[in-house]
Amino acid sequence: MSHNSFGHLFRVTTWGESHGPALGCVVDGCPPGIPLTAADIQAFLDRRKPGQSRFVTQRREPDEVEILSGVFEDDRTGGPVTTGTPISLMIRNVDQRSKDYGDIRDTYRPGHADLGYDLKYSVRDYRGGGRSSARETAARVAAGAIARKILPGVTIRGALVQVGRERIDRAAWDWDEVDRNPFFCPDAGAARRFEAHLDAIRKAGSSVGAVIEVVAEGVPAGWGAPIYGKLDQDIASAFMSINAVKAVEIGAGMAAAELTGEENADEMRMGNDGTILFGSNNAGGILGGISSGQPVVARFAVKPTSSILTDRRSVSSAGADVDVRTKGRHDPCVGIRAVPVGEAMMAIVLADHLLRHRAQTGRDGPVAFPLR
Amino acid sequence: MSHNSFGHLFRVTTWGESHGPALGCVVDGCPPGIPLTAADIQAFLDRRKPGQSRFVTQRREPDEVEILSGVFEDDRTGGPVTTGTPISLMIRNVDQRSKDYGDIRDTYRPGHADLGYDLKYSVRDYRGGGRSSARETAARVAAGAIARKILPGVTIRGALVQVGRERIDRAAWDWDEVDRNPFFCPDAGAARRFEAHLDAIRKAGSSVGAVIEVVAEGVPAGWGAPIYGKLDQDIASAFMSINAVKAVEIGAGMAAAELTGEENADEMRMGNDGTILFGSNNAGGILGGISSGQPVVARFAVKPTSSILTDRRSVSSAGADVDVRTKGRHDPCVGIRAVPVGEAMMAIVLADHLLRHRAQTGRDGPVAFPLR
Amino acid sequence: MSHNSFGHLFRVTTWGESHGPALGCVVDGCPPGIPLTAADIQAFLDRRKPGQSRFVTQRREPDEVEILSGVFEDDRTGGPVTTGTPISLMIRNVDQRSKDYGDIRDTYRPGHADLGYDLKYSVRDYRGGGRSSARETAARVAAGAIARKILPGVTIRGALVQVGRERIDRAAWDWDEVDRNPFFCPDAGAARRFEAHLDAIRKAGSSVGAVIEVVAEGVPAGWGAPIYGKLDQDIASAFMSINAVKAVEIGAGMAAAELTGEENADEMRMGNDGTILFGSNNAGGILGGISSGQPVVARFAVKPTSSILTDRRSVSSAGADVDVRTKGRHDPCVGIRAVPVGEAMMAIVLADHLLRHRAQTGRDGPVAFPLR
Amino acid sequence: MSHNSFGHLFRVTTWGESHGPALGCVVDGCPPGIPLTAADIQAFLDRRKPGQSRFVTQRREPDEVEILSGVFEDDRTGGPVTTGTPISLMIRNVDQRSKDYGDIRDTYRPGHADLGYDLKYSVRDYRGGGRSSARETAARVAAGAIARKILPGVTIRGALVQVGRERIDRAAWDWDEVDRNPFFCPDAGAARRFEAHLDAIRKAGSSVGAVIEVVAEGVPAGWGAPIYGKLDQDIASAFMSINAVKAVEIGAGMAAAELTGEENADEMRMGNDGTILFGSNNAGGILGGISSGQPVVARFAVKPTSSILTDRRSVSSAGADVDVRTKGRHDPCVGIRAVPVGEAMMAIVLADHLLRHRAQTGRDGPVAFPLR
Repeated sequence: MSHNSFGHLFRVTTWGESHGPALGCVVDGCPPGIPLTAADIQAFLDRRKPGQSRFVTQRREPDEVEILSGVFEDDRTGGPVTTGTPISLMIRNVDQRSKDYGDIRDTYRPGHADLGYDLKYSVRDYRGGGRSSARETAARVAAGAIARKILPGVTIRGALVQVGRERIDRAAWDWDEVDRNPFFCPDAGAARRFEAHLDAIRKAGSSVGAVIEVVAEGVPAGWGAPIYGKLDQDIASAFMSINAVKAVEIGAGMAAAELTGEENADEMRMGNDGTILFGSNNAGGILGGISSGQPVVARFAVKPTSSILTDRRSVSSAGADVDVRTKGRHDPCVGIRAVPVGEAMMAIVLADHLLRHRAQTGRDGPVAFPLR
Repeated sequence: MSHNSFGHLFRVTTWGESHGPALGCVVDGCPPGIPLTAADIQAFLDRRKPGQSRFVTQRREPDEVEILSGVFEDDRTGGPVTTGTPISLMIRNVDQRSKDYGDIRDTYRPGHADLGYDLKYSVRDYRGGGRSSARETAARVAAGAIARKILPGVTIRGALVQVGRERIDRAAWDWDEVDRNPFFCPDAGAARRFEAHLDAIRKAGSSVGAVIEVVAEGVPAGWGAPIYGKLDQDIASAFMSINAVKAVEIGAGMAAAELTGEENADEMRMGNDGTILFGSNNAGGILGGISSGQPVVARFAVKPTSSILTDRRSVSSAGADVDVRTKGRHDPCVGIRAVPVGEAMMAIVLADHLLRHRAQTGRDGPVAFPLR
Repeated sequence: MSHNSFGHLFRVTTWGESHGPALGCVVDGCPPGIPLTAADIQAFLDRRKPGQSRFVTQRREPDEVEILSGVFEDDRTGGPVTTGTPISLMIRNVDQRSKDYGDIRDTYRPGHADLGYDLKYSVRDYRGGGRSSARETAARVAAGAIARKILPGVTIRGALVQVGRERIDRAAWDWDEVDRNPFFCPDAGAARRFEAHLDAIRKAGSSVGAVIEVVAEGVPAGWGAPIYGKLDQDIASAFMSINAVKAVEIGAGMAAAELTGEENADEMRMGNDGTILFGSNNAGGILGGISSGQPVVARFAVKPTSSILTDRRSVSSAGADVDVRTKGRHDPCVGIRAVPVGEAMMAIVLADHLLRHRAQTGRDGPVAFPLR
Repeated sequence: MSHNSFGHLFRVTTWGESHGPALGCVVDGCPPGIPLTAADIQAFLDRRKPGQSRFVTQRREPDEVEILSGVFEDDRTGGPVTTGTPISLMIRNVDQRSKDYGDIRDTYRPGHADLGYDLKYSVRDYRGGGRSSARETAARVAAGAIARKILPGVTIRGALVQVGRERIDRAAWDWDEVDRNPFFCPDAGAARRFEAHLDAIRKAGSSVGAVIEVVAEGVPAGWGAPIYGKLDQDIASAFMSINAVKAVEIGAGMAAAELTGEENADEMRMGNDGTILFGSNNAGGILGGISSGQPVVARFAVKPTSSILTDRRSVSSAGADVDVRTKGRHDPCVGIRAVPVGEAMMAIVLADHLLRHRAQTGRDGPVAFPLR
């Protein structure tokens, strides 16, 4: 058991606080022989990096990753490959303005983890949220970059599909659009609405929630396991472990409650090449905890950050009533930078399930038709 | 790692198929000295038992539990108590009509786990869904009954709050009402609407989804852990592991995406007795993965069962197109019997976190104010 | 974490007390499609069964195993095969003479687990040792029989190589001899010496220790992992978990301390067929935690049972000095029946490592020469 | 599951190679509020540090530890304390002479892990043994220093009790002597014999095995658990995970095989203060997997390092016969520096079991007499 590890066979252990000297993770169980350089990881860290637009925190962190173990030159290619031993990654914290946080040492921001930490542990690194800061997600993104490497043929992409009450038009979904706006929004029209809405929020010193959707295409049928090794169960666990997440949906999600059996079940026909053609994807690519071969589709809702410029009623460590206003540099919509984090967690879950599937069946994918 | 275990320190391993000789579970890590009889467990199994109304499956299973290990007479009371060793529980399957299922041996019901199992394992017990049957949840309810025993002061109750598009009126919520209708519905008016709706669904040979809410009152502040040992993460994992669940919400859930920071954060004031009074509970009692002392509130959405009396397009194990209609005895709304299952999973998660909290802090609850 | 599970990917959870209604185990993670009947398991249980000679306990237990889940008829063969779901095994206890044990309810037999259980849990099932009884090892042997099934090409055999100060002559080792005497002794001459020694011990109401050696031939190179996933580490853990074991050796074992580097390192030459020929096997087939392709050789020492007919000084639950003499039916040399238990634990460890190796490398064995 | 973690509730994950940029570990689950500085850890690292006498490797590594996370200033004392979050420790590698190792890139030193790594992973960092180097044990010693901090009242000490065929005189045991000679030898006379023997070994370019004994005094009765959570099982696992270890003994160890029941069982009498007085300690302080209150006594045998200056017959990665002689700087007796490593592993096991005991019983120690 570990409070700071995720995954079983592809196992990630993260460490570090927002204003400590560094943060990082250890990735254990990665297969050997996978080409891996710091640049491979950096590309994904750069997508999550703070300070890239006016809609995210202005903290300036280069988030440069250092690989401390687990890779070595390959005899055949000369390039670095994984060796099957633990991969240790470290990212130094650079732009800490810890003095911003003296105020919250003894007053608890409503909606934040501060109070719970103090009630549990009686001591906490309060600077920038300490261990509860979303800076920890940099380690997830780094580990996710490695996870992607062992998932050839699987494409994992995330998108921001809702900000406050503004939703995308699903008919306008264009994956190429995601990289053209600062919101990872797949709908150009919605991106403009997001921008207007977030400018207003930002100027008001307020914040707002969001919904992120992550889609994994190319996942073969058969990954996952019944009962307590369900693929969707691990996705739910992975997404709910991300800071500020309050809900997780697979496929039709909450809306499944409104469907009838006729509407819900995704009908099937055989394709020409032995694959199955589905008429819909309410299941989100997972049935009975096992992938069906359809795209895996999952969403999570992120609450608005509780770091806002308005006074809120709260209590102090002394047990007195106080009013709290949060200074510091924060994201008006933490959901934006949660997009690459959601992708990373999906990659970690899938990498873990690939190895688990391989262990029990000796295969990477499903058996072929005829099945008997 | 286990595909069939849940929990870390309070650990439940379940086994059994729908039409095998029996099903059961092993509960490991239960503290010693807890009074426990089969009757204690039976009371909860009876709430989940099939055949109790026309709205659930007509399979007749007494679901009588046998305790095979882990309890012994207490010297002080003479009554049976847990000994700290594994508690093995068994429930014999009685009313199996396996012949109902010959048809689905080689044809896959859309929306069911059948196909995934065959693609993964190449063999499956198809009778009644085999391992993927919701009969497995009887073992969860039995384990949950034990979990409740080590949670003195915690009250865990579930309710059906939505069936199809019919929702309860939250202003009419009355916990006493839950046991007065066959739906575990806390709103008498909604129960009548559920009844009318489900009668129509049942007669049409159809099915419909639902939403279950589980509330745990009396959970002390401080349970849970940061990052990957989050209390809400484990609730999400627990609920998503239940058959047919497609979404999990904590507190405000998906609606948190629509809130602003001002609306979302639950304000606090000190109460007279050193406890904290909260102005709202959007957090669902959990902040940063740790309980706040407020009621823990979580929901999950259950899809409609895919066992319906209408032909659906599907494929066979031979790789041919077929049309499938599901015979057998099924629940028109599997969400009803999911209520005691949701309660059980909440109890198991909380019992596990009580032991984890105790291990790391040496306490069962939070430190007292002043915190420093 | 579990106090009652062993293994990671091939995971065995046992339950049951010596004088409870039954004992058993759940085997999780077994690959699907493995032919398995109760008779396959029974063959191994019969080797461990009590009452087979005058040198073991006279308790009469048929130890008949019932498979409760996890197997189903295979379409191709019609015979039962594993389905990839948890295999639940149960053995009813039949010949309980619990009244023999009233005396030890409140007095602690020196050298037994009784006192520790009471100091820890404050309650225990004292009948026949309860959970600490070696009857639990029946579940291990049953699980081991399944583990052997997924290890084609691997031969696991155990032998009793020492009883008290009587040792076998290694030059006389004959595996066929093991089944010809009641001691699993591979040396016919030593078997006669064991018999004379044990008859004397038995008549004196005494007991004596023993050493068991387990050899696994056919283990491919490459199983195991560096650091904390070492194959020898897991064998040490497995053997030390067996009742009454006080020491574990791999290869040269304790004697390795006396060797020089020249004597110890097993020299290698290439064989004709791409395999490696070793000049010796001080390593016991494991180097750096990974199998070398040589036979895996391990031993464990079992202490004499503390159930003897001589008064021993002890204490009572009341905290008073008492003298204790153990009635009941016991093994004068528990090491004899530990032979099939040791084999079973070796099989479970190897099955687990096969699956772990497969997960990380996608292979069941080593890469072939040339290695680069 | 992890290949590179040890412990459950006090969980250590190590990473790093001998000639990589650094090595380190993450300690997860440490209780909050424990005073901890780098100096606390450094004191133990300095005992294990290479280059301290002519009897160990001449590699010059300062082994300076850096604490990267998990501690913060305490409000009450101002000094750094643990916060309950993961503690990340890093030690930079400084004195790497990687060119010494070019020869072993493609030839396998008999008795070393090289070949197994290549057969399993097909790639390895061969420099100085890479991940299989005993440099990894620096991370263990660092983690062990933290483990000691949560074990107040427990004294853990190790000693070298045998080098080759030279054994200490147990009657001459003096713990103070351990720090007065370069061998951690508790017997001044034996230390002189060790010195003479090792000088001869060193000059011959040879190496020799050793036996280390670790004693933990002050362990309360009740730690450990039956069956697969046994305290001695975890000690066996911990010790066997150390490089070059081939055997583990608890209490009487292998010699228990020679004892009769009368000789073996440690008799008990009540002491004046409610504690138990034992007449002997063949059990090594552990009965039925649970501590008895006596000192926990365990030993392990270390084989001679296979890095010797004599040609040995071996094979190459090309599959050809070669002769190998190992250059580089090595320990003539790796058992010497294994003493602090053994202590550290004992501390980690005990810390883990303290937390496990606390979780299940809510206490740190046993119940008091009268037990019922």
